[in-house]
Amino acid sequence: MSEKTMIPPYERTAYYYETDKMGIVHHSNYIRWFEETRVYFLEKCGYPYRKMEEEGVMIPVLSASCEYKNAIRFDETVLIDLKVTEFNGFKMTVTYTVTGKDDGVLKAVGETRHFFVDSSLRPIRVKKEHIGIYNVFNDYKELCLQS
Amino acid sequence: MSEKTMIPPYERTAYYYETDKMGIVHHSNYIRWFEETRVYFLEKCGYPYRKMEEEGVMIPVLSASCEYKNAIRFDETVLIDLKVTEFNGFKMTVTYTVTGKDDGVLKAVGETRHFFVDSSLRPIRVKKEHIGIYNVFNDYKELCLQS
Amino acid sequence: MSEKTMIPPYERTAYYYETDKMGIVHHSNYIRWFEETRVYFLEKCGYPYRKMEEEGVMIPVLSASCEYKNAIRFDETVLIDLKVTEFNGFKMTVTYTVTGKDDGVLKAVGETRHFFVDSSLRPIRVKKEHIGIYNVFNDYKELCLQS
Amino acid sequence: MSEKTMIPPYERTAYYYETDKMGIVHHSNYIRWFEETRVYFLEKCGYPYRKMEEEGVMIPVLSASCEYKNAIRFDETVLIDLKVTEFNGFKMTVTYTVTGKDDGVLKAVGETRHFFVDSSLRPIRVKKEHIGIYNVFNDYKELCLQS
Repeated sequence: MSEKTMIPPYERTAYYYETDKMGIVHHSNYIRWFEETRVYFLEKCGYPYRKMEEEGVMIPVLSASCEYKNAIRFDETVLIDLKVTEFNGFKMTVTYTVTGKDDGVLKAVGETRHFFVDSSLRPIRVKKEHIGIYNVFNDYKELCLQS
Repeated sequence: MSEKTMIPPYERTAYYYETDKMGIVHHSNYIRWFEETRVYFLEKCGYPYRKMEEEGVMIPVLSASCEYKNAIRFDETVLIDLKVTEFNGFKMTVTYTVTGKDDGVLKAVGETRHFFVDSSLRPIRVKKEHIGIYNVFNDYKELCLQS
Repeated sequence: MSEKTMIPPYERTAYYYETDKMGIVHHSNYIRWFEETRVYFLEKCGYPYRKMEEEGVMIPVLSASCEYKNAIRFDETVLIDLKVTEFNGFKMTVTYTVTGKDDGVLKAVGETRHFFVDSSLRPIRVKKEHIGIYNVFNDYKELCLQS
Repeated sequence: MSEKTMIPPYERTAYYYETDKMGIVHHSNYIRWFEETRVYFLEKCGYPYRKMEEEGVMIPVLSASCEYKNAIRFDETVLIDLKVTEFNGFKMTVTYTVTGKDDGVLKAVGETRHFFVDSSLRPIRVKKEHIGIYNVFNDYKELCLQS
């Protein structure tokens, strides 16, 4: 994360119940951590996801993917950085980089794609009726492109 | 479960992601299996939980407890038996017995207590407006008391 | 799945605790269902994953991805079909198709990539020392290519 | 938590994937949060659970229970306080109080009981061979009794 964005990466320590019998964090949990990271960044951007939902906007996941580079162990802390790489008010692509806090080792990279829906789960263009939400994502995308 | 109830126990095989680094099923998952067992029994009683929710009735959990007797391993199959031990149309107590399918060993016993709410999460007495739901639980309780 | 494989798709009903506040199955669970599907297919192929682990072979996930086509609701049953699309004794690619049992609607498609490790988590080539395991995956890959 | 213990309660914000279709945190997650709280307190006591495991000591759960007082919503932050109410070097009882950070409302109370095992999952008395571990729990119990 460049200094321009001024949002420090999301810090997360692996819980015991997130490990499996291989002794490492189960791969499905990374997808959950990506969601935590999105919520964290929106909070830091001053527009919490909770508030978006109160406005009747939800951001379902169109696709999710993760490449696992190095295992994460119980009680290990990782830093998750997030970039908005595409956003047009209708669809959005978010990428994630997971790095060990102590060892600096790349643990995983991931991507999620999203669209925007109203409370009836109908797709919407947020630029029209939710300009505040539009701006949060568009501004952050610009920041990511510059960095 | 006695033959009178004619509902065979719920059969569940432990998934890989349910294990933790101790190599056994994480204890929190038993609470989830109890919920699966409730849904299974209601299905078998001919009144699926899904249908109760469509009628606007939900059955939140007031308390949950589990005693862990013997560890459950990956791919091990258990049989979970369910008894309604208390039900008055307002509150309900359900107990669970988890037994290894292959070894017959008692793995755990548990209990959940519930109340009934409408879609606004307000407590309701199901006997009044949801007699069908009342009868399902009351009949099953009677069956459990006899067995 | 063609008749040649003679392995019926994995059947899975969505649990209540797998839903989120959007009222649909949380997207992270699909990655877990893919794992369940792998375990199911190996069981059906006569070489359970449990047995592979007993032989000291584990099959970690290199990458996982899922495209979400249509939401899955509580208590909805899906059929998950699995194909081995690549396997060379060292790495493997598996694809998944998730279809509604009742509505026949395509719910999701996914892919996981794997490698093979010994109990020290060191990569291995299964053809050399674990020919039984090699044959299971290779035979199934052949079957998938033909179908 | 009294000032004597000098360990501030564990602070936890509910993740989106922890909610269910009722729109509140699924009850099974409280059991997981209790585990997180144990790990947090041991860290704060200067004897991380990770380190205990490295010494070959694990602390499985004999029983777990939770009474749900008030629902917890997505993105709501709770404070979880932990007391060791019984400890004799062989068995231990831990209690939990979950309170809303913003509203001060009691959300839940819980209890877990534990024993101590070596890496072969055989019960051990930690006073004998693991006096450091014994002291951590015994000291904290004393602190809890005084407060």
